Amino acid sequence: MENYTLNGNGSGNLKLRRIGIDTYRENVAYLHRECEVYRIEGFQALSKIEVGASCGDEGHIMAVLNVIDDVGIVRQDELGLSEQAFAQLGQPEGSLVCVRHAEPPASMDAVRRKIRGRRLSQDDFRAIINDITESHYTKMEISAFIVACGQNELDRDEVLYLTRAMIESGEKLDWQEPLVADKHCIGGIPGNRTSMLVVPIVAAHGMLIPKTSSRAITSPAGTADTMEMLANVELAIPDLQQIVRKHRGCLAWGGTADLSPADDIMISVERPLGIDSNGQMVASILSKKLAAGSTHLLIDIPVGPSAKVRHMHEAQQLRRLFEFVGDHLGIHLEVVITDGRQPIGSGIGPMLEARDVMRVLQNSPLAPVDLRQKALRLAGRILEFDPDVRGGHGFAIARDILESGRALAKMNAIIDAQGRRVAEFVPGKLSFEVLSNADGVVAAIDNLQMAHIARYAGAPIAEGAGVDLFKKMGDAVKKGEPLYRVHAEFPAEFHFAQDLCRRNNGYSIGAAADIPAAFVEP
Amino acid sequence: MENYTLNGNGSGNLKLRRIGIDTYRENVAYLHRECEVYRIEGFQALSKIEVGASCGDEGHIMAVLNVIDDVGIVRQDELGLSEQAFAQLGQPEGSLVCVRHAEPPASMDAVRRKIRGRRLSQDDFRAIINDITESHYTKMEISAFIVACGQNELDRDEVLYLTRAMIESGEKLDWQEPLVADKHCIGGIPGNRTSMLVVPIVAAHGMLIPKTSSRAITSPAGTADTMEMLANVELAIPDLQQIVRKHRGCLAWGGTADLSPADDIMISVERPLGIDSNGQMVASILSKKLAAGSTHLLIDIPVGPSAKVRHMHEAQQLRRLFEFVGDHLGIHLEVVITDGRQPIGSGIGPMLEARDVMRVLQNSPLAPVDLRQKALRLAGRILEFDPDVRGGHGFAIARDILESGRALAKMNAIIDAQGRRVAEFVPGKLSFEVLSNADGVVAAIDNLQMAHIARYAGAPIAEGAGVDLFKKMGDAVKKGEPLYRVHAEFPAEFHFAQDLCRRNNGYSIGAAADIPAAFVEP
Repeated sequence: MENYTLNGNGSGNLKLRRIGIDTYRENVAYLHRECEVYRIEGFQALSKIEVGASCGDEGHIMAVLNVIDDVGIVRQDELGLSEQAFAQLGQPEGSLVCVRHAEPPASMDAVRRKIRGRRLSQDDFRAIINDITESHYTKMEISAFIVACGQNELDRDEVLYLTRAMIESGEKLDWQEPLVADKHCIGGIPGNRTSMLVVPIVAAHGMLIPKTSSRAITSPAGTADTMEMLANVELAIPDLQQIVRKHRGCLAWGGTADLSPADDIMISVERPLGIDSNGQMVASILSKKLAAGSTHLLIDIPVGPSAKVRHMHEAQQLRRLFEFVGDHLGIHLEVVITDGRQPIGSGIGPMLEARDVMRVLQNSPLAPVDLRQKALRLAGRILEFDPDVRGGHGFAIARDILESGRALAKMNAIIDAQGRRVAEFVPGKLSFEVLSNADGVVAAIDNLQMAHIARYAGAPIAEGAGVDLFKKMGDAVKKGEPLYRVHAEFPAEFHFAQDLCRRNNGYSIGAAADIPAAFVEP
Repeated sequence: MENYTLNGNGSGNLKLRRIGIDTYRENVAYLHRECEVYRIEGFQALSKIEVGASCGDEGHIMAVLNVIDDVGIVRQDELGLSEQAFAQLGQPEGSLVCVRHAEPPASMDAVRRKIRGRRLSQDDFRAIINDITESHYTKMEISAFIVACGQNELDRDEVLYLTRAMIESGEKLDWQEPLVADKHCIGGIPGNRTSMLVVPIVAAHGMLIPKTSSRAITSPAGTADTMEMLANVELAIPDLQQIVRKHRGCLAWGGTADLSPADDIMISVERPLGIDSNGQMVASILSKKLAAGSTHLLIDIPVGPSAKVRHMHEAQQLRRLFEFVGDHLGIHLEVVITDGRQPIGSGIGPMLEARDVMRVLQNSPLAPVDLRQKALRLAGRILEFDPDVRGGHGFAIARDILESGRALAKMNAIIDAQGRRVAEFVPGKLSFEVLSNADGVVAAIDNLQMAHIARYAGAPIAEGAGVDLFKKMGDAVKKGEPLYRVHAEFPAEFHFAQDLCRRNNGYSIGAAADIPAAFVEP
C-alpha cells in the first residue's frame, strides 16, 4: 500500500455553511463543483451523502447533493446545508465537517418488495417509517413508497402495521382520563368547520375534547387556520393541558407536539402527487389521533360527486377499514357518512369560515343552516359516547347546549384561555362577483373547484381571502344574478382567482331534476 | 369589481437571475421569502409554478419552487432559476419574468390510472413521455410513473406503446443503408467491454456498425468512457456520419444526438431508486437503438447470481419481450443469453478496461481469454446478419479477422478518424491489494460489489481508478495471496474504496463444488 496525503488542505474537512434555502423537508447539501476536498463527480447524481461533524463520528445526517458553480453560494472549501439539514446536523457555521457516500437506506429493500407486490411485515413498516422520520429518504424514495402502497392497495393488516409504526415515530400525549373524545373529517368539503362547534358543545357537556388540528395543506382553510382568526392556537403542550383540564376542551394547532411526524413528511409528497389511497388515509388520521391520546373518535366521511369519496360502497369500504384498524389499536371509533355534495356553510377561507362559526354559536339568523345541522348531528353522536346519555338523545342535548348560549360561553372561555385575538371579520378588499350565466336552479357546486378558487385568491395565508357563497344547491337563480363573491388581499392573487373563475366557476346551473340525490340522511 | 394596483412596483414582473446550482435535470425556481410581487405562501410547497417571459405569453417553463432567505442568492425583486431551467427559458439575466400557478400536467391522470392498475393506451404514453421530455414532471412525479409501471408489470403492448412514445420524444438518425448493425448488453457485468472488440471486427468485415454508447451511470465504466481513453468520443453527427461512411464503424458517445431524451430523464430517477423493471429496460434500450437508426440488433443478456438477471426463466421471459417489441417496431432483433456469473476480463474502470481491449486486439498473451471469447461469439452472431455468411460460420470469420490483425488495424483507423488520444495505461497511483483470507478456490465474485468498489475508488471519472483482478472463479488461492488490486487517484476516494473492501471484498473463497453452474454455453 502506497503512502498518500489525504488532500490539498491535509484534513479531509470542509467548513460548514448554512444556506438560506428552504427545501421543504428534504435535506440538501451543496458542494462547489471545484470542491477542494472531494471530486463531485465521484458522487452519483441524486444519490445521497452522509455529512458528519468529523470523519468516523456517529452524529451524521443524510442529504441529497446539489452542485454549485457560484462561490457566492458555496466556496470550494465549504459544504453548504439547506435550513432543515443545517438544523438537523446541529453544528455551528464554520465548524469542520466531512462527507461520505451514503448507502441507500436498508428499508428500501422492503419498498422494492412492495413494488413487486409482496406483503410487508410489522418490522418492514417500522424500518421504513423510521428511515422516513430520520430524513434518510429522498422525496423520490418517499414517492416510490407511497405509490407502491397505493397500488395493489395495502391489506388491512398492513394498514394496521403502518399506523402503528407511524404512532411510534413520534410523541404520545396522555390526558390521564378514561374518555378523551375527538372527531375528524376525512376532508375535501370547503367550509366544513364543524369542529369549532362540536368542541364547545361537547366541552360544555363536560366531556373531555382536547382538539388538536392541522393547518390547511391543500384546502383553503384548516381548523387551526380558522380558529386562529379568534385566538392563539400555537400553545405549548403544558399550557394546552392546563387549559383542557380547566375548560374540558381546546382548539389548538397540533404542530407543537411531535405527533406522528412521519405523517407530515409523507403528506408533503402525497399531496403534490394527488395520490390518496384508503390505506394511507386511515394510517395518517388514526396515527395522529392515537398519538394525540384520543380514546373515543368520530370519523366523518362525506360522500358526493366532487367529494373525496364519491360512492356509498366506497364509503362503506373505508368505514370498515377505519373500524378494523381502530379496534386493533384499542380506540373506540365510530363512523358517520354525511352529505358531501357541496360546500358546507357560506364562507370558504379562514375569516369567512370563522364568521359562519360565530354566527351559529350566536344563534344568529344569518347562521348557515347546513353547518348548524351537521355540527349538531356530529356533536350529538359524540355526546352519546357518554354512558349516561341514552342512544338517540345526543342531538337534542347538543341543540339545547347551542340554543341556550352555553356553547357560545364555552367557546369564549376557550378563546380567552388560549389568548383572544381581536376578531374583525373584514374580508379581503379586492373582490369580484361571479354571476349566473343562465336562468335556472343551482344543480351542482364543485367542491374541488371552489377550494381551488379560494386557494388561488390567497386563502388560508391571506386571512380575509376566500369565497362567500350566495347560492347553494337547489336555489333558483336568474341570469346575471351573483352566485358568490371572491375576496383577495393581494393583486397577483386577485388575478389568479379571476383567471381561474373564467375557466371554470365551479357552479352548474340547470333544472331541479339535475341535482344528484344525497346518499345519506340530511 | 374594485380597483387595485397590481403590486409594489406596479408591473407584476421580477428580474430574472441565473443561479449556479445544478439540480440534475429538475427545473427549480428560487423566490425570496419576502418577494415583492408574489406572496410565497400562496404557492403550495413542492407544487410547480410557471415562469414566462411576460404575463400571458406562451413561452414558459415549469419549475419546482424553493424559498430563499438570503438576498445573496436571490433578492426580493428577483426570480432565480437553476442552470437547466435558465437554459430552457432562454431569456437573458435581468429580463422581466412573471410567475403563475402551474396546473399539474394533464397526463398525471393517466399515471394515477396506472397506479390503480389500469392499462394505458398509446395516447396516454405519448402524453406522459411528452410531459416528461418537456420537464413538466417533478422527480416525484417521474418516480410515481416509474413505480406504477414497475408494479403490476406493463403488459407487452404497453411496453411497445412506451417504446414508441420514447422514440418519438427525440431525433432519429438515418444511415441510408439497408443493414445497420448494433449490439447492446443489458448491463450489470463489470469489465464487459465487448463492443470495443465487436465494432472493429464487424466493420473490418464491411458491415455497417455505427455504435453510439452511453457513459457510465451507475457502473464503473461505460463504453464511451473506456473508448475515451483511446480517442475523442464527442463527435458532431455530421462528423460521425462521415467517419462511418469511410470506416464502416465508430465508437462514439450517443449524447451529442438527441436520441430518446425521455430515456435519459427517466434513468436519472430510476437508478437512484434501484428500480429496473423488464418493461422499462426494454423500452429504454430499444428506443435508443431505434432512434440511432439500427436495423439489426444483437442483445446480450448475462445470467448469474449477481447479474441483473439471475435465473434462466427470467432471461427467457425478457428475451420474448425484446423480440415482441422489436418485431412490432420493425427491427431485426436477436438475443444471446451469456454467462454472467462474474466480471469479464481483468480490469474494471476506464483505463484498465481499455488496456484489456487493446491486449485482445493485439493478440497479446496477457489478453483475458473470457473477454476475447465472448467478443468473438457476439461478433460472429452479428456477422451472420450478413445474408452471405452461412449460419454457424460467423465465429470462425470473426476469429480470423481478430487473429490476422485486421481488427486491430480497423480499430486504429477508427481511433485516428475520431481523434487519437495518447494512451498511457498508467493506473491510479494510490493503490492497495486485497488478499485472500483463506486457502481454497475462488467460488464466487460479486459483480455488484466489484462495481461498487471500482466506483468508490473513483471510476469512471478518475480514469485510472478501478480494480485489477488477479484471480477469477475457479482459481486456487492461498491465504494471504492477492485477489485484486484497487487503484485510485484521489485520497478521499482511496479511503472510500478501502472502507468498502473491509466491509465486503466481493470474493467468496470455498471449494470447487461451490461454484455455481453456468446456465449457458461458455
